[in-house]
Amino acid sequence: MTTNAQLIFNQIPKGEPTPETFKYNTENTIDLEQKLDNGAHIVKIICVSLDPYMRGRMRPAEVKSYSPAFELHKPLTGHGVGVVIRAAADSQYKVGDHVYGMVPYQQFVFYPGQQKVDEESKKFLGPQVGLRVIKNEEGLPWSAYIGAAGMPGKTAFMAWKEIADAKKGEVAFISAGSGPVGQMAIQLAKADGLKVISSAGSDEKVAFLKELGADVAFNYKTEDAKKIFAEHGPIDVNWVNVGGKSFEEELEFMNMHGRLIGGWISAYNGESYGVKNLFQFVAKRLMMRGFIAKYVDDFYATIPKKLAFGDLKFKECKYDGLENAPKAFLEMLAGKQSGGFGKVFIQVAADDTD
Amino acid sequence: MTTNAQLIFNQIPKGEPTPETFKYNTENTIDLEQKLDNGAHIVKIICVSLDPYMRGRMRPAEVKSYSPAFELHKPLTGHGVGVVIRAAADSQYKVGDHVYGMVPYQQFVFYPGQQKVDEESKKFLGPQVGLRVIKNEEGLPWSAYIGAAGMPGKTAFMAWKEIADAKKGEVAFISAGSGPVGQMAIQLAKADGLKVISSAGSDEKVAFLKELGADVAFNYKTEDAKKIFAEHGPIDVNWVNVGGKSFEEELEFMNMHGRLIGGWISAYNGESYGVKNLFQFVAKRLMMRGFIAKYVDDFYATIPKKLAFGDLKFKECKYDGLENAPKAFLEMLAGKQSGGFGKVFIQVAADDTD
Repeated sequence: MTTNAQLIFNQIPKGEPTPETFKYNTENTIDLEQKLDNGAHIVKIICVSLDPYMRGRMRPAEVKSYSPAFELHKPLTGHGVGVVIRAAADSQYKVGDHVYGMVPYQQFVFYPGQQKVDEESKKFLGPQVGLRVIKNEEGLPWSAYIGAAGMPGKTAFMAWKEIADAKKGEVAFISAGSGPVGQMAIQLAKADGLKVISSAGSDEKVAFLKELGADVAFNYKTEDAKKIFAEHGPIDVNWVNVGGKSFEEELEFMNMHGRLIGGWISAYNGESYGVKNLFQFVAKRLMMRGFIAKYVDDFYATIPKKLAFGDLKFKECKYDGLENAPKAFLEMLAGKQSGGFGKVFIQVAADDTD
Repeated sequence: MTTNAQLIFNQIPKGEPTPETFKYNTENTIDLEQKLDNGAHIVKIICVSLDPYMRGRMRPAEVKSYSPAFELHKPLTGHGVGVVIRAAADSQYKVGDHVYGMVPYQQFVFYPGQQKVDEESKKFLGPQVGLRVIKNEEGLPWSAYIGAAGMPGKTAFMAWKEIADAKKGEVAFISAGSGPVGQMAIQLAKADGLKVISSAGSDEKVAFLKELGADVAFNYKTEDAKKIFAEHGPIDVNWVNVGGKSFEEELEFMNMHGRLIGGWISAYNGESYGVKNLFQFVAKRLMMRGFIAKYVDDFYATIPKKLAFGDLKFKECKYDGLENAPKAFLEMLAGKQSGGFGKVFIQVAADDTD
């Protein structure tokens, strides 16, 4: 038997999650030599994603929401990449296949056969069920497939295509610009010829926004967003990554017929500020749509290549080992990653694992 | 000289408008026999509209908003229908033409020639500038052209066509269903095969909602909207006529991929309740668009006929004479019209005026 360490959902947080929300369990084991049949296979996890939306899953199972609650005393689940290390002769995968999908946060996963996904998860994931084989002919780090070439990148790419209705010369505002969605959104907006205003929470991040092409980048902790908007707005396309009071201020500076793409990172922890000026939607004929990515083939056909060639830049924030996931998650929610900024992920095993 | 009574914007209200906000001025006169040239013409006003959005125009001129402020000590302006009673030989109108457009609220209007519209008004009105000749081959009361066949009807018609994306069997919720926009929206939703839930503020209005075809109609003052939505929802298309706390409750009962059409009557008086659950937009991938009607020819080609034939019903609330406009406006804002419910308007002169 081999150790199969897990990141367990240990306790439902009251308010903010704490280290006690999680338990790193090294007692769990797996038999890697077991006989496999009926399509069974074993995946060794290489890396897993940490995302703000996971906060919303840390709730009692009886509280309904858009994403399924984590099961108490079971491993957390989320987007990850792994490699198939064993497969039955009739498995849909073969040894050496790299796969991407929703996985339990542990070192190895035994799949008893054709993957079954419950109805609630299907509703949440849409067609994004089961594990998808990733060729990675571009030679990107596997973590890219849970970041810039994964859910956050797809969210940015598809939402921009479907909602932004971007016209050259317009003004885009992208909050949380150094985050995984924001990074991509800035570059897509610039590629479409927009003037981009973007914000982040440190001067180091602001410097990165400029590197990505933002025309106007500011530190929202030290600068007054309203002054920036008054000088460089009004905003035609607003990527809403922060809710509450910021959103209310942004609404005041929207242009007529502006479009808003709904992301709301801050609201994952429970919104406390009530927005009072929604009448701006009528006054300015605004349009807003909430968005979460689904699978798309044309995304995989274009974006990984551009990332590999450096046509699109991305920045990641790596933490090594599942044992560091609680620390990483809490730092991410506080926006204070000790590992730097960008897409937060856990390297569970080396990239060249086979 | 002939008396040309006017409804004057007398005082900027602090909070709610009061009778002192208005002044009915009978001192004003007009020379109906004057020589007319250079395209000049004189219009006798038949009826004018009172709408909640006019509250927002009762503000100091220096406060910018989506609609131009009323000029202090000048007549109020708004949608009205009149008849051309005199016209220069080179006027674009001829005597007897009935015309619709934005007019000052007085008995007669002298137009010195080709109508000029300032830039601010153009931005507000879009292409809806100048006066449009209305044939009324359907023989509708002229007031219909400022109600069901006017701005409120057009708003309902166009917003439904452009935003609702209605599918047979879906659920629509229409608040303020007895109002001029709501009446039309209920009937359009039913025509598209939706189940319609609608609310209003009195049992008499609720009975009318059922007459219009609403499947579920309730009095929001005596019944719990959340219970209704829990039983008959979730809501696929939400016609948002009331903001604040109602809107927040409705968001909880929206279906995945729901659409919201922004109207917000209540917000015209200044919103006091802050909406905290906008994250529902992301969780449920909702789409919302604010909407105000513009001119459309296909509306005039179809709707007046349907109104005349009774295929579409409408209910109006008439007050006689400009002198009753302050009373009517205040009663309308309070939702307590002594003239009944439905589209509020002022009959300034008899319909058969020529």
